[in-house]
Amino acid sequence: MANISILGLGAMGQALTARFLQQGHTVTIWNRTPGKAASLVAKGAREVKSAAGAIAASDVTVMCVLDYAASDSVIDEAASALSGRALVNLTNGTPAQARAAAGRVAGLGAAYLDGGIMATPPMIGGEHALILYSGSKATFDAHAGALEGLGAANYLGADAGLASLHDLALLSGMYGLFAGFFHASALIDSEGIRAASFLKLLSPWMTAMMGALPEYAEKIDSGRHGVNVVSNLGMQAASLDNILTASREQGVATDLLDPMLELFRKRAGAGFGDEDISGLFELIRRKSGQGR
Amino acid sequence: MANISILGLGAMGQALTARFLQQGHTVTIWNRTPGKAASLVAKGAREVKSAAGAIAASDVTVMCVLDYAASDSVIDEAASALSGRALVNLTNGTPAQARAAAGRVAGLGAAYLDGGIMATPPMIGGEHALILYSGSKATFDAHAGALEGLGAANYLGADAGLASLHDLALLSGMYGLFAGFFHASALIDSEGIRAASFLKLLSPWMTAMMGALPEYAEKIDSGRHGVNVVSNLGMQAASLDNILTASREQGVATDLLDPMLELFRKRAGAGFGDEDISGLFELIRRKSGQGR
Ligand SMILES: NC(=O)c1ccc[n+]([C@@H]2O[C@H](COP(=O)([O-])OP(=O)(O)OC[C@H]3O[C@@H](n4cnc5c(N)ncnc54)[C@H](OP(=O)(O)O)[C@@H]3O)[C@@H](O)[C@H]2O)c1
Ligand SMILES: NC(=O)c1ccc[n+]([C@@H]2O[C@H](COP(=O)([O-])OP(=O)(O)OC[C@H]3O[C@@H](n4cnc5c(N)ncnc54)[C@H](OP(=O)(O)O)[C@@H]3O)[C@@H](O)[C@H]2O)c1
Repeated sequence: MANISILGLGAMGQALTARFLQQGHTVTIWNRTPGKAASLVAKGAREVKSAAGAIAASDVTVMCVLDYAASDSVIDEAASALSGRALVNLTNGTPAQARAAAGRVAGLGAAYLDGGIMATPPMIGGEHALILYSGSKATFDAHAGALEGLGAANYLGADAGLASLHDLALLSGMYGLFAGFFHASALIDSEGIRAASFLKLLSPWMTAMMGALPEYAEKIDSGRHGVNVVSNLGMQAASLDNILTASREQGVATDLLDPMLELFRKRAGAGFGDEDISGLFELIRRKSGQGR
Repeated sequence: MANISILGLGAMGQALTARFLQQGHTVTIWNRTPGKAASLVAKGAREVKSAAGAIAASDVTVMCVLDYAASDSVIDEAASALSGRALVNLTNGTPAQARAAAGRVAGLGAAYLDGGIMATPPMIGGEHALILYSGSKATFDAHAGALEGLGAANYLGADAGLASLHDLALLSGMYGLFAGFFHASALIDSEGIRAASFLKLLSPWMTAMMGALPEYAEKIDSGRHGVNVVSNLGMQAASLDNILTASREQGVATDLLDPMLELFRKRAGAGFGDEDISGLFELIRRKSGQGR
């Protein structure tokens, strides 16, 4: 069993703490605003008054706060305590933020492991929880046992930005899914149909349509969007236009899907109406020489 | 076995024809532009030179063309042949277009059944194919046997617009899913990672996140977005902001996800940052007195 400190007791920090306690670890906790620790203290956690005190108490410290503005300020405040310690930062941020934090923490003489939690708090410790890690391999290896207790632990490489990159990409997929669901629910609601009853049609449909992703992925990787086309972009532009027209007629705001029709039209206008809609990738991808 | 005519031999019309032939029906086919019938004629279909001729040849005619501009023009052209016949229109359109077509076809003395195909052409006749129907119940009942051969047949009611409404709502969900996938693939591609390899992480993740939909549906139906919140909107706005910031840094266009962050901010600004993101529904839904 390990000595572990947790910085941040939001919904996620509380779930991480509860799981470590359940697994029999010795857990020291800190939160910026007092008053969030009571139920965890009742389960055996030890609360301390500063982030530096928490870091000093354990072999490894897991931080999970709102964003990197928050995690950077915690690192500032606790800088003196970090030398010789290991910090696992599970705060959501960008690859650039993770890389900057890794450099900064290394400069303070500590090991830095970044992570992205692919689970909601109630999923922590359950069979569907996944946590992505990147950065210090030594830290990952030394604490893999404890970290595996939170969920499947996937180490992606020494570049501290990799966990964040994959995390944000997975979240992009999720937000697309949710945007589609909210729009679908609004359309169906406009005729007085309940979302819960519509979900009986939607769930199997979405599962079936996930079946299209491997072929789209192959077309994205090969750049060949014109082979084996069964649902051409021109036809799909007409369908998406119908969705947006019907939405307006039904009084439903089209904000979430408007940009997709614009991209369909742009791609069709460039002469790719007979190809697959995977060609949309070409309109949003990084062009060589662009970006970082 | 039935006599069935098919109007429209695009990717979908061809799949419908092939399936009816495989099931042993007598199939008469027509397409605006000649030259798409050869392989179907080789399988036993009879090609005719006009839509009116096709309608006159069979008990029931199934139309599947690009959009309602197309299907309306076919109805115009073949108006004289429709009296006493049954027309099943599987063309994608809006509820208003379906209702208008139903009125028009009824005025010409024919029965009208509208439909929405929830399947790609290769899925037709397979276990995951679903076709939604609404409009003439008598037509649905009379031809249910043949229609079931195409895929599970779900009759939603006498209002001809219902199939289209559900079809467009299901497609909304699908386009959200695809938009999220394209964005995710572009983000991951910006660091040279292949979409196909990333899909090994994305597919189980999307399946896990589909698990959130029943709770969101419940919150949408009850209007209570503030109960049992484990992933609050303020926190998710920070994550989505990270996605868009990282995308810009990586040179990836943010068009597909920008509007969602705007809605997150609007909802948080209205004081709902501690509630669930299902509250986005309230920003896009039809307000009473609005729309049709
Ligand atoms: N909840 C989820 O479903 C989920 C899933 C995956 C990943 N995550 C990630 O986990 C992280 C935490 O999320 P959460 O759900 O726990 O959020 P939350 O419930 O909103 O809690 C936010 C936490 O951040 C702290 N914080 C904010 N600003 C701070 C600052 N300037 N200095 C120090 N602490 C600060 C808060 O402390 P106070 O109490 O003092 O405000 C609180 O402990 C986020 O990065 C999120 O993206 C969450
Ligand atoms: N493919 C799918 O994955 C899929 C899935 C579900 C539903 N659908 C729906 O099925 C319908 C057909 O799709 P598809 O994939 O077969 O499209 P497609 O391959 O692009 O074929 C379009 C068909 O529409 C005909 N057409 C277009 N304008 C016309 C006009 N003014 N008059 C007469 N015919 C006209 C075309 O005839 P010409 O050969 O003369 O151009 C062709 O037969 C669409 O409403 C679509 O939304 C398709």
